[in-house]
Amino acid sequence: MADVRIVFLPGGCPAVVEERTTLLEAAQKAGAGLAAHCGGAGSCGACRVRVAADAPVSPPGLVEEQLLRPEELAAGIRLACQTLALGSLQVEIPPESAAVAQRLQVGGDEHCARFDPPTEVRDVELPPPPAATPQSDWEILIRRLDLEELRPNPGLGFLRRLGAALADDRTVRLGLRRGAPSWALPAGRRPLGLAVDLGTTKVAGYLVDMADGEVLTSGGVTNPQIAYGEDVLSRITAVMLDGALQERLSRLVMDALGVMAAGLCRAASERAGAQAPLLPGDITECVVVCNTVMHHLALGLSVQGLGVAPFRPVLRAPLECKAAELGLAVHPEANVYFPGNVSGFIGSDHLAMLLASGVGRGGGGPVLGIDIGTNSEISLCRGGEILSCSAASGSAFEGSTLRFGMRAADGAIEHVRVRDGRVEFQTVGGGKPVGLCGSGVLDAVARLRAAGAINRHGAFVAESPLVRRGPAGPEVVIAGADVSRHGRDLTLSRQDVGRIQLSKGAIRTAIELLLRQAGMCAAELERFVVAGAFGTYLDVDSAMDVGMFPRLPRERFRQVGNSAGLGARLLLTSESARRQCADMAARIRHCELTGLPEFRSEFTRAMWL
Amino acid sequence: MADVRIVFLPGGCPAVVEERTTLLEAAQKAGAGLAAHCGGAGSCGACRVRVAADAPVSPPGLVEEQLLRPEELAAGIRLACQTLALGSLQVEIPPESAAVAQRLQVGGDEHCARFDPPTEVRDVELPPPPAATPQSDWEILIRRLDLEELRPNPGLGFLRRLGAALADDRTVRLGLRRGAPSWALPAGRRPLGLAVDLGTTKVAGYLVDMADGEVLTSGGVTNPQIAYGEDVLSRITAVMLDGALQERLSRLVMDALGVMAAGLCRAASERAGAQAPLLPGDITECVVVCNTVMHHLALGLSVQGLGVAPFRPVLRAPLECKAAELGLAVHPEANVYFPGNVSGFIGSDHLAMLLASGVGRGGGGPVLGIDIGTNSEISLCRGGEILSCSAASGSAFEGSTLRFGMRAADGAIEHVRVRDGRVEFQTVGGGKPVGLCGSGVLDAVARLRAAGAINRHGAFVAESPLVRRGPAGPEVVIAGADVSRHGRDLTLSRQDVGRIQLSKGAIRTAIELLLRQAGMCAAELERFVVAGAFGTYLDVDSAMDVGMFPRLPRERFRQVGNSAGLGARLLLTSESARRQCADMAARIRHCELTGLPEFRSEFTRAMWL
Repeated sequence: MADVRIVFLPGGCPAVVEERTTLLEAAQKAGAGLAAHCGGAGSCGACRVRVAADAPVSPPGLVEEQLLRPEELAAGIRLACQTLALGSLQVEIPPESAAVAQRLQVGGDEHCARFDPPTEVRDVELPPPPAATPQSDWEILIRRLDLEELRPNPGLGFLRRLGAALADDRTVRLGLRRGAPSWALPAGRRPLGLAVDLGTTKVAGYLVDMADGEVLTSGGVTNPQIAYGEDVLSRITAVMLDGALQERLSRLVMDALGVMAAGLCRAASERAGAQAPLLPGDITECVVVCNTVMHHLALGLSVQGLGVAPFRPVLRAPLECKAAELGLAVHPEANVYFPGNVSGFIGSDHLAMLLASGVGRGGGGPVLGIDIGTNSEISLCRGGEILSCSAASGSAFEGSTLRFGMRAADGAIEHVRVRDGRVEFQTVGGGKPVGLCGSGVLDAVARLRAAGAINRHGAFVAESPLVRRGPAGPEVVIAGADVSRHGRDLTLSRQDVGRIQLSKGAIRTAIELLLRQAGMCAAELERFVVAGAFGTYLDVDSAMDVGMFPRLPRERFRQVGNSAGLGARLLLTSESARRQCADMAARIRHCELTGLPEFRSEFTRAMWL
Repeated sequence: MADVRIVFLPGGCPAVVEERTTLLEAAQKAGAGLAAHCGGAGSCGACRVRVAADAPVSPPGLVEEQLLRPEELAAGIRLACQTLALGSLQVEIPPESAAVAQRLQVGGDEHCARFDPPTEVRDVELPPPPAATPQSDWEILIRRLDLEELRPNPGLGFLRRLGAALADDRTVRLGLRRGAPSWALPAGRRPLGLAVDLGTTKVAGYLVDMADGEVLTSGGVTNPQIAYGEDVLSRITAVMLDGALQERLSRLVMDALGVMAAGLCRAASERAGAQAPLLPGDITECVVVCNTVMHHLALGLSVQGLGVAPFRPVLRAPLECKAAELGLAVHPEANVYFPGNVSGFIGSDHLAMLLASGVGRGGGGPVLGIDIGTNSEISLCRGGEILSCSAASGSAFEGSTLRFGMRAADGAIEHVRVRDGRVEFQTVGGGKPVGLCGSGVLDAVARLRAAGAINRHGAFVAESPLVRRGPAGPEVVIAGADVSRHGRDLTLSRQDVGRIQLSKGAIRTAIELLLRQAGMCAAELERFVVAGAFGTYLDVDSAMDVGMFPRLPRERFRQVGNSAGLGARLLLTSESARRQCADMAARIRHCELTGLPEFRSEFTRAMWL
């Protein structure tokens, strides 16, 4: 069957697949980050994509006719899991279908195109040494590679693999890093790459073919450190109380990455069918992006300095080490690259986002980029200058401190509207509601404020028909017991609203103070880029309504999803991206905002709704 | 009490000890390699030393009067374990008292004096970072060390220890290797070094104070790989049959070295008394010398190339790696240095011998250096040129293939004489005989040949009164059942003599062919240096009598004991010794003798007695 090329918008990531492959499979191959809650079974309807009217795809089937409205089908909306590609085409992933994985709307596909891998792959055939002279494999190799002059200090791990590879076969596949032999694979093995976005809660991984940069598959696991604390500060505390945890937490992450790598290899092998299976031992290149505390916890570096002001990291520079040093179960000599950190609160995940979203590139007008999480990182880029800060935005948007809060998982209310005096909602997966995730809570506060049920200070307006007297004070029912999955009313309390006020206040304060540091006002921003899982799903209008974001024309906003993951993939396959990222890190001026005299007053004002 | 300085000859190694310390204890501190079979209990009489008539020592006591003859005492012979130093003095260790450890008679004490350690130790106090800037520990450190321009790639292990060391205390003790931070110790810890002579059978270790090069203590363990084969070839075979053994054998050696390091630290701590204990974690520098197969087996490098012609090693160049990479339980960032190998059969132990004995230095007249073992290494140095070869001398001299053969342990017959038609012998430890070790067998063959009991072809002369008809053919009783420890006659068979002929023939053949390669004859040799445990104990006259060594004036021979161990210590504490050793390795021309047309005829002739 012929191969067809499918390009997913807005990210521009391509996949080359066989004709009659489903668009979902192609999206997975491209790492385009398309939601598929039911795993492609055709039951959830989450993988909606848009194709042109004349696009070469299979006609809608029974499943799509059931799950899609006629006007949607007319507009080119299709379920990716039900639609077969019959030729090359472009597929648009609408925001509501974007998985955590990726939804890049800034920078376009130019990044996807760049491919200059940091390690050169070379097949070398070594002649057997002449019987009389006692030349070693290493000497024969460096002579073969014309490295005699360089005489790099051979790495022990490399020599172990080299000897093993040459024992049976005198041909070996080598990785040369900066001209020096870095790893050895048996001839014919296909070097793979692993890009990791190591979050405090979730770990996302992308398995990449290092021959062409193609994403073979992607997937995620939970960060097992969660057992030692939901957030980074509680993990630092745990380590401070029990020094032995330092090594244990690093071990846990590395084990999880190893398991993830094995799973991705298995999945990619199954997809590829009868070919030789892909093995974790073929992963010769890794990139890990993460926040600074996760960076230290993963590497086994002391986090003691990160627990107290001035939040001193052990290392900010990029670090490259061998997988064996980390105990990471891929090729033992795989080069594992950790890009640099900016400060104790701004890590390489933010740098990766700035890289992938183009925010950090400079050149154009002023751009603000924000990663929203328990700790939010914000960068203001103008010309070549980058001002960055962090904001303690708390975990309200991740659902963990709210009465009915939850993560954006199946059954989470992700959007709320007030129509005709009644609260309406939409859940992840479309089923019965279980709780509220960040975007749902943000919507609820914004819509209830607009409906007059909440005043500007966040208090419920007793007179509003939406507000009722609950056992612990006034509350608003978002979903009644009759429709909720567990048969209880899902409500929003005054305390919940207060938590959202604190979170959004912290973010807005940081944005305002950062702008002030640059002598700018928000209106001058040419673009406002929102990244991260919550940032992907939030309703920008709600965010403006509650005052979390400054009011700007709607079209200036870009929701770029998990661009840290895309950034990790760029860093994996591109030496110039690594240089660009290091260069960017050097240009960043870190602002510590809490020390500013105007911080308190600004924060008080930013809490208003 | 005052400290006194004791210098041990011929090695010239000094020890500074408290007044009234025994000479044995001082010799142990100096690492002078004095035999003490009974561990200093005063029962074996092995630790004989010679002191000047007016040397400041305690007078002979009862034990010495029992174990030493009056003429010995008159000649200044003393038992080191019974003699107290009352002032500074020189002590001579006669050849018969030299332990395996060291008996250096060549090169004198000039090597002991040289001390230019490869790693610079520096105490650094790091100021806390200013609150506003997010500088990392690493940045503060490299600025403090003025390394900003250099920007060495930080090592992960170093960063782990740095962070830990700086967490509580802002002062840290650093090792700088080639200007770059290499390891970190908490302030005040004393960096230690470990020199290892890793033999196929035995492992000798020396714990060294890296501040001044003093040997704190030394000791040995059995090479645990013995469970997988007595000699290197059987271990190669074992690995070839079971690939998983490769890693296991490396693990075994590293575990043994870790145990040995811990034992040496404990012993040195006990000796030092109340001071802070010395810990393996303070060992920051290691050197391991060994033969090429042990080198590969210890490092986990493939030995497949070493098992078949042309006996290709994976690596010949010097290798420096981190202890953590090896799984060696010392400081994880300790620099472990493996000097280079010359060929599959000539390893760094031979280079270390050439270094320590001065053979490889060149400059003087022609010198031949030989390490006798299962595989013997021979180097001929003339001017700057070094010709080296190896000889498959077999394990007869190590006692393992002879009927009553044994290692040079307690009860081994180490010397044999034929006096008045009767065989006389001397055992290690002086007790009842158990078997014959190499030097005893060599003596036996030489003396029985001289006494006419063996002819030039190695056959017993039936007419000799020394020869009797045994159950398996003619034999000679070396020790009768009435005196032997197990109540059986200890005999020498025709087969035993044949094995010795093969061994000595291989050695002599190699010496002759090497000389011929250089266009020389033996008489031109200015010195003939014999190293190794067997080489220490053998009687040079017997070796010449049986034709193992060419006949030369007796004074040209030097028996230097375990100079590989001394070489390892030189390499541990001296960067210039490392350069010298690498330079020497580059100058060596390796000769493969078995390929020469004259090999067979020469070998046949060399077998004659």
